[in-house]
Amino acid sequence: MGNSLGKKFVITSFGESHGRCIGIVIDGCPAGLAITEKDIQIELDNRKPGNAISSTKRAEEDKVDILSGVFNGYTTGAPICLAVWNEDAKSESYEKTKDLMRPGHADYTAFMKYGGFNDYRGGGRFSGRNTAGFVMAGAVAQKLLDSTGVKILAHTVEIGGVRADSYDVISADVVNNNPLRCADLRDAAKMLAAIEKARKAGDSLGGIIEGIAINVPVGLGEPIFDTLEGDLAKALFSIPAIKGVEFGAGFGVAQMKGSKNNDAFRIKRGKVVTATNYGGGILGGISSGMPIFIRAAVKPTPSISQKQKTVNIAKMENAELEIKGRHDVCIVPRAVPVVAAMMAITLCDFALQAGIIPEVIK
Amino acid sequence: MGNSLGKKFVITSFGESHGRCIGIVIDGCPAGLAITEKDIQIELDNRKPGNAISSTKRAEEDKVDILSGVFNGYTTGAPICLAVWNEDAKSESYEKTKDLMRPGHADYTAFMKYGGFNDYRGGGRFSGRNTAGFVMAGAVAQKLLDSTGVKILAHTVEIGGVRADSYDVISADVVNNNPLRCADLRDAAKMLAAIEKARKAGDSLGGIIEGIAINVPVGLGEPIFDTLEGDLAKALFSIPAIKGVEFGAGFGVAQMKGSKNNDAFRIKRGKVVTATNYGGGILGGISSGMPIFIRAAVKPTPSISQKQKTVNIAKMENAELEIKGRHDVCIVPRAVPVVAAMMAITLCDFALQAGIIPEVIK
Amino acid sequence: MGNSLGKKFVITSFGESHGRCIGIVIDGCPAGLAITEKDIQIELDNRKPGNAISSTKRAEEDKVDILSGVFNGYTTGAPICLAVWNEDAKSESYEKTKDLMRPGHADYTAFMKYGGFNDYRGGGRFSGRNTAGFVMAGAVAQKLLDSTGVKILAHTVEIGGVRADSYDVISADVVNNNPLRCADLRDAAKMLAAIEKARKAGDSLGGIIEGIAINVPVGLGEPIFDTLEGDLAKALFSIPAIKGVEFGAGFGVAQMKGSKNNDAFRIKRGKVVTATNYGGGILGGISSGMPIFIRAAVKPTPSISQKQKTVNIAKMENAELEIKGRHDVCIVPRAVPVVAAMMAITLCDFALQAGIIPEVIK
Amino acid sequence: MGNSLGKKFVITSFGESHGRCIGIVIDGCPAGLAITEKDIQIELDNRKPGNAISSTKRAEEDKVDILSGVFNGYTTGAPICLAVWNEDAKSESYEKTKDLMRPGHADYTAFMKYGGFNDYRGGGRFSGRNTAGFVMAGAVAQKLLDSTGVKILAHTVEIGGVRADSYDVISADVVNNNPLRCADLRDAAKMLAAIEKARKAGDSLGGIIEGIAINVPVGLGEPIFDTLEGDLAKALFSIPAIKGVEFGAGFGVAQMKGSKNNDAFRIKRGKVVTATNYGGGILGGISSGMPIFIRAAVKPTPSISQKQKTVNIAKMENAELEIKGRHDVCIVPRAVPVVAAMMAITLCDFALQAGIIPEVIK
Repeated sequence: MGNSLGKKFVITSFGESHGRCIGIVIDGCPAGLAITEKDIQIELDNRKPGNAISSTKRAEEDKVDILSGVFNGYTTGAPICLAVWNEDAKSESYEKTKDLMRPGHADYTAFMKYGGFNDYRGGGRFSGRNTAGFVMAGAVAQKLLDSTGVKILAHTVEIGGVRADSYDVISADVVNNNPLRCADLRDAAKMLAAIEKARKAGDSLGGIIEGIAINVPVGLGEPIFDTLEGDLAKALFSIPAIKGVEFGAGFGVAQMKGSKNNDAFRIKRGKVVTATNYGGGILGGISSGMPIFIRAAVKPTPSISQKQKTVNIAKMENAELEIKGRHDVCIVPRAVPVVAAMMAITLCDFALQAGIIPEVIK
Repeated sequence: MGNSLGKKFVITSFGESHGRCIGIVIDGCPAGLAITEKDIQIELDNRKPGNAISSTKRAEEDKVDILSGVFNGYTTGAPICLAVWNEDAKSESYEKTKDLMRPGHADYTAFMKYGGFNDYRGGGRFSGRNTAGFVMAGAVAQKLLDSTGVKILAHTVEIGGVRADSYDVISADVVNNNPLRCADLRDAAKMLAAIEKARKAGDSLGGIIEGIAINVPVGLGEPIFDTLEGDLAKALFSIPAIKGVEFGAGFGVAQMKGSKNNDAFRIKRGKVVTATNYGGGILGGISSGMPIFIRAAVKPTPSISQKQKTVNIAKMENAELEIKGRHDVCIVPRAVPVVAAMMAITLCDFALQAGIIPEVIK
Repeated sequence: MGNSLGKKFVITSFGESHGRCIGIVIDGCPAGLAITEKDIQIELDNRKPGNAISSTKRAEEDKVDILSGVFNGYTTGAPICLAVWNEDAKSESYEKTKDLMRPGHADYTAFMKYGGFNDYRGGGRFSGRNTAGFVMAGAVAQKLLDSTGVKILAHTVEIGGVRADSYDVISADVVNNNPLRCADLRDAAKMLAAIEKARKAGDSLGGIIEGIAINVPVGLGEPIFDTLEGDLAKALFSIPAIKGVEFGAGFGVAQMKGSKNNDAFRIKRGKVVTATNYGGGILGGISSGMPIFIRAAVKPTPSISQKQKTVNIAKMENAELEIKGRHDVCIVPRAVPVVAAMMAITLCDFALQAGIIPEVIK
Repeated sequence: MGNSLGKKFVITSFGESHGRCIGIVIDGCPAGLAITEKDIQIELDNRKPGNAISSTKRAEEDKVDILSGVFNGYTTGAPICLAVWNEDAKSESYEKTKDLMRPGHADYTAFMKYGGFNDYRGGGRFSGRNTAGFVMAGAVAQKLLDSTGVKILAHTVEIGGVRADSYDVISADVVNNNPLRCADLRDAAKMLAAIEKARKAGDSLGGIIEGIAINVPVGLGEPIFDTLEGDLAKALFSIPAIKGVEFGAGFGVAQMKGSKNNDAFRIKRGKVVTATNYGGGILGGISSGMPIFIRAAVKPTPSISQKQKTVNIAKMENAELEIKGRHDVCIVPRAVPVVAAMMAITLCDFALQAGIIPEVIK
């Protein structure tokens, strides 16, 4: 259960890391949206590890395959099924250690929940690889949002204790063209150094991603329960490794006074704006028209090359585990486009619910 | 839309701050649960402001009224409707300032979303008063969880920059019997002093609440989208004023290495446990059996007595607003039982989905 | 579970026959709809038994009480809770026979499903009285549909083997102003005679209701699963006693040839129409713009005064039951406005889903 | 929208008649169910037209492809994606006549709803071919139901006015081994003659299918809205061509008296049964433990070889249409396994909701 998300732009995820494919079904995409494999492929490619930071040896092409819902270059109103096929899965190593629960991974909880029937190869259903489906659906969502003017950008703001604090403006070009997905190249260089250091120590690093959405119309969000914060947070927590989500001033509100935290309303060029934006573009669970700011904490990659203490679940005894092969030292940069995708999916769902995106695109 | 939450323990909220009542319908509560008004009233009373910290002049009895679903002291399997009647609403002051959008409140976004038809009196649908419904549903959820052994406790860990750091153990008795809902009385005294200072300045304070759930069985959560983190976060973001949610080490993961953040598995008394609990009791979106730790950031009360800049929405011009009357300087302590309630509701929903709570209680 | 219906116009039902009240919460009603108690009361009164056919001795005022969601005469966009209070419930007689499962009623299945905790008084949750909530929600739905031009009328087409076949036109005035809810007064007289005869025999009668919706825009329905037929049928089967639902030619299609059953398309005054309407206004699960025709079979009232064979569920032995008091010999006429209500609710939900009714009524 | 069905055993359909494939995703299938391609293929093959009655020239292998959710022969608890690939679609003929709306088909309503972007080839999303997905999901559902003892059988009871009335018992062997899916071979022969006659006339025939489920536990169904009748009916109406659904005595109740229609309860071998079963195994929307009887009316195949009146939607003018190629004269026999599949899916969903099928099969 729980493999569908959304009310009007509903995505259903399927697939496993070492199974046949990773797939996503989108139900509720309006008819008439021009979409091609290329539109989706750009986003998928963006998610691939850059050579500089990655040590994942798995070589997947990750070419999107549109299985349904698009005809003559336009969406038809029918469900859109998108898949990438798994072609380079090497499952042997997982067989040997399948009883050793990898710390920080979902091996143990999945084993317990599914009675040991879960596909353990490469984390199976819990692999970060499933986010390829999120990115494909996000590409379609962003295409739908284009007509509303909404633009989404995510970027790396912290890795291994190194904060990105040198940038004056955030440029999509800069972000997308450096492997750290960082808005400033000097900060990116420092992060890279931290990653290199961790790699040598056989360790891994966490970080923080910021997502920004601009031109969001006033009125998205369906409180009291389907708040914009709540549904964005839920969407982000479906990305493996995310352990915290905050909006605007976020946890900083704990140390602010109301006189500061209250964003004063002002009229500017005939529109209502706020003088500051500590609310992160959301008031009462509804978008205010100001930019949306969201920050997500990403934990260090659980797969490290150091020897770890764990249990053998079949024998119910303590054991040691040494994870072979090479893994990403830090998945923060690869999670950046996934954060953007989940934001696009959620905002698109609310825009459809609010009637801001029409039932047929013309 | 968006006024229902849950899949198997589904709550539907209705009511406004100055309307007839605040109500909640629970659909999916198993038959055979012994429940009385008293069980629910205890929790409702817990949510009332203590005299020491509150300056809310509204005097509501907030007596629960069970409108359906309970017969001869037991739940029947039919939907349970619970209400508290509004009896002391004073709406006049809101009429005069209804066009002045209160900064930090939902006045503006609600006005825009609902075309000006929203009930603006006391914040209407966006009032913190709606959390009375959450607390009533939470009382029923906690009763259901009792059979599974799950215990939930929330407490104040920070107010206005003052951190609770003196406690060795967290005692429900201490927490529930001081108006700050703090685990240590010395810290509570410091927080109270900070509140008094802010009150004199006509200002308000934010803070952080920690929620803990123990004895949670392994296996709650329905990834890939209905993760335990995601659904807990979504539930918490429906509490007005919450701007950040984190689990376990939370945003601290950004500065941790994998070798530390990975909680080592160990066998202890025949069961699998983790040596540390940076994951906050959740792995892969599923409960691990370790205590669940969640922290929520609460923004300062938007209603302050200082003069504020805002807009007159009818005239579309800049204006100033002075909020009359007295308001809570800090709502953190009052939000503590609401955090516990939303945790109970979410865990109960997942326990029902996982078949851990039966369809009929016997 | 299962007490909510709809995707965008979501109704949640609560209450029992002999409990405090019968209630319904509507979530998703657009803001700005002018609505008064009177609008709803007209429909509720329409559901009351006429003196001519009823022998129900329960005397309920059934005055609608708007508990939330309406402010200054307009809907606010917040959930609308509507209730009628139970004031004349006499529960004593039910205590004595509570272990005797009434044939044709839900006593036995409810006892088994809810472990004997179900409220058995007057059928409790399974009483036809719950349809008062449906009718209240239907009144709101019809108000919303008014702007689209959709008009719904239901009428009695068969009772106890007597078919209404004399009418040339179906006039809402004639239907609403005779207690049989029949389109022809001569047919109504024959039905009344059949009812009188059954009453004297201590027996009861079933019948058939036809529901018609005109001016329905093309495009309502969300196949492949949320077809217009499927969701209308599901809504109608929530009315106790309905055992069959058909559209257009319905079961008659079994004896038709395709050359006749296929409704030929024609251009008429610049619009596409069909020359015949065997499809009942629905093709591929989507409204075609032609009038929608639906027929529902209503079983004879299970409460009859003849002695009946049954079981004592506490003693698990065969028993006899004589139901005291007086009951409706035929509930078909009372179910007529309920059929109309469920049609309005379903069409309104689809019209909102399709964006045909806007988010704010202006 | 509307391409998912169910609450706990949730199926999501995708694919088009002339697209890449027909697929179905099952979310909520418990882990640990032994399942192979063969289990599913048997049901798919059962859906194929027998040579005797079919004239469909399309030659599809319809081999099931398991894309996810099964590992080492067992379900994993992850979503199961099943597909059959389209390999023999001939789309040319549809291009020429794409502006001519085929009477009785969804061409016109789909064109209007989706702004002309719908895939019109072979009916696209509205093709009966989509029921291949239903049958695949039904095979998994029936496998899950096996442990509860529930057995489902559907059979043809009427075609073109010829009723099956010769059988004494209904044998699955007889039903599955004659191309009419009829319980008596003599009746099947008469139906075949009627079909032959219609074929020669270039016409088509409708009919009625009966679905039976035995050994259904008491307690399935979630009233007040998610009744067993309502959800079964909704599921059946998703099969193209079904225009009526009835349970037990069905529309016959209109002519019955309560004294007959009320099924008397009796104790038999220590269990509660009913002496008759006019209720069709359902009381108050909940299964009673008696066999479930459901009947569905299937309209004549809309594709006939006679010339038909229609419109050219591009030119908005009257036109004539002659459908080339050969089509099934009567799809009733092919719909028989689909009716059984939708019953299995619905009963399985309710059994999971009621906790009768466990979360992990062991």
